[in-house]
Amino acid sequence: MTSPSEKALVPFVSVDNMMRLVHHIGIEQVLRDLAEYIEEDFRRWELFDKTPRVASHSDVGVIELMPTSDGEAYGFKYVNGHPKNTSEGLQTVTAFGLLADVYTGYPVLLTEMTLLTALRTAAMSAVAAKHLAPKDAHTMAMIGNGAQSEFQTIAMKAILGLKVVRLYDKDPTASRKCAENLRDSGLEVVICATPEHAIQGAQILTTCTADKQNATILSDNMVGSGVHINAIGGDCPGKTELASGILTRSDIFVEFPPQTRIEGEIQQLPADHPVTELWQVITGAAPGRTDNRQITLFDSVGFAIEDFSALRYIRDKVHNTAFHIDLDMLADPDDPRDLFGMLQRAGA
Amino acid sequence: MTSPSEKALVPFVSVDNMMRLVHHIGIEQVLRDLAEYIEEDFRRWELFDKTPRVASHSDVGVIELMPTSDGEAYGFKYVNGHPKNTSEGLQTVTAFGLLADVYTGYPVLLTEMTLLTALRTAAMSAVAAKHLAPKDAHTMAMIGNGAQSEFQTIAMKAILGLKVVRLYDKDPTASRKCAENLRDSGLEVVICATPEHAIQGAQILTTCTADKQNATILSDNMVGSGVHINAIGGDCPGKTELASGILTRSDIFVEFPPQTRIEGEIQQLPADHPVTELWQVITGAAPGRTDNRQITLFDSVGFAIEDFSALRYIRDKVHNTAFHIDLDMLADPDDPRDLFGMLQRAGA
Repeated sequence: MTSPSEKALVPFVSVDNMMRLVHHIGIEQVLRDLAEYIEEDFRRWELFDKTPRVASHSDVGVIELMPTSDGEAYGFKYVNGHPKNTSEGLQTVTAFGLLADVYTGYPVLLTEMTLLTALRTAAMSAVAAKHLAPKDAHTMAMIGNGAQSEFQTIAMKAILGLKVVRLYDKDPTASRKCAENLRDSGLEVVICATPEHAIQGAQILTTCTADKQNATILSDNMVGSGVHINAIGGDCPGKTELASGILTRSDIFVEFPPQTRIEGEIQQLPADHPVTELWQVITGAAPGRTDNRQITLFDSVGFAIEDFSALRYIRDKVHNTAFHIDLDMLADPDDPRDLFGMLQRAGA
Repeated sequence: MTSPSEKALVPFVSVDNMMRLVHHIGIEQVLRDLAEYIEEDFRRWELFDKTPRVASHSDVGVIELMPTSDGEAYGFKYVNGHPKNTSEGLQTVTAFGLLADVYTGYPVLLTEMTLLTALRTAAMSAVAAKHLAPKDAHTMAMIGNGAQSEFQTIAMKAILGLKVVRLYDKDPTASRKCAENLRDSGLEVVICATPEHAIQGAQILTTCTADKQNATILSDNMVGSGVHINAIGGDCPGKTELASGILTRSDIFVEFPPQTRIEGEIQQLPADHPVTELWQVITGAAPGRTDNRQITLFDSVGFAIEDFSALRYIRDKVHNTAFHIDLDMLADPDDPRDLFGMLQRAGA
């Protein structure tokens, strides 16, 4: 059998190779790079093909496909969300993604995206905070100390120069795990017994909890003026983290309104409640923070364009390196009309 | 670094392994098996989560995601359609697919689907013909002798007992390629110079051409009574193969009406033109062929459930065999909340 041609081979980045790549570049540099790729794509937001994710819900979770295209490349992510998985020793969220060439339709990259999603979600939060948080924000309250918490924290350090993180989780072992992982980060890490304690002196409040239900992680009277809230965990219908009173006192910034109205914190508000699209803040078309006493809220649900940015970054970084293997994933007969002949000859 | 757990490894079937598997089982047996899996899923059609495919169109082609779920398994196919690819030495259609466990959201199979789609499309046509073609149909006209033509022909032999195939293509080299590939098939193969010649004495007329435009491969006066038409090639908006006069004389059977009305031959007809869903013929809820003189038309566009059946089949067949490799595609920390710790330890 002759070997497949180069185009028929799809570079694949395994979890192992993704970890090697991140260490090769350095995690803080990866987060800064991802922030740059995301900002680049948010600046050209209007040319993307945007559709809300395609979700398949079951009683215990959701499986989603998140496609988008800039006209030259096409990307999609497969991602599941199963909160009950943790108690069975599995990840709540696993993901992989693919980038393809729009001109030929041929895939050009297949990659794990569980780690990559954690990295891009953190980079996205830091991009939003860079444009919205009070100047010289140095302290973050991190409410919910699960799988995302260290990534969020390190991204705020790498991109905003965060100095202090104050941890709270209803499960103290989660906070201890997070603190242990951040021990050599150069950050001051404070474990707090209550959310009220965690938000003391913080200019950035990040919520990232995983219950698939409407919860009140931050109540209205807990949040004072002059802060930026980064709400990560509310990301599907029926799942929110903030008291609605906080929302009505905040200026709200979102990724893609049709998706955020269904999945974000603002599902609690009327469908015409004003929100600002973050890409417009990044291009300068809309104001971000205008006042020191303002509460800004990034109602983050994660959008396909962020995954696209991350896929572009990995494609650029693994090219001509050993951080991938090639998969024989596309049939490639010598004569494209002779697929059957290729199969037949393989049996000879 | 510790090895990933079994659940974090995703079995991957390459093109090479797919070809080995098909030869191991035998191509006619594979087609019969696929027909059985498809019929099984069509019989339980109503319990599937059905959405039209999610398409991203460009000037030169389309990239589509086709998801579905039966509540226990979730499957999707990535497939492109780029008619201009052939002239550049590439496949018009390439595809891969994935099956996942709805309960955990974890993928359980990743496989090439360029070959598998060719096989399932042929098996689907034969299933339709089995229920709709005149009794004892023995001769098929195969109009369009590209990559699908041999698969269509062998499936009609394996499942219906076809004896004779009459080939026509506007490019005679395509017909010669098809005839050469079918030389040892046990079928009588006749190359015809015109479509009119090809359909002489045929009870089944299969059209499978690849132009991305409305074409008239079969004109109204060419098609007499008492035949079954299997229209494969019209499968996207603006792409049809049959004169509308044939459609109005036919009883039309389709996979999923909302998709076929957009993509099939019936895009030429009013949106309320009556059609029968094939699954209802298979369950006995609707009649198939009722009269020897009737023209039946299977307006095939390909539906996600057929890919789901094919994915189920491959999952069942490769389990505990050497026809796959395992991909380290899903991050799998010992403590699911400790994704960052896993990354950190990998760098140590």
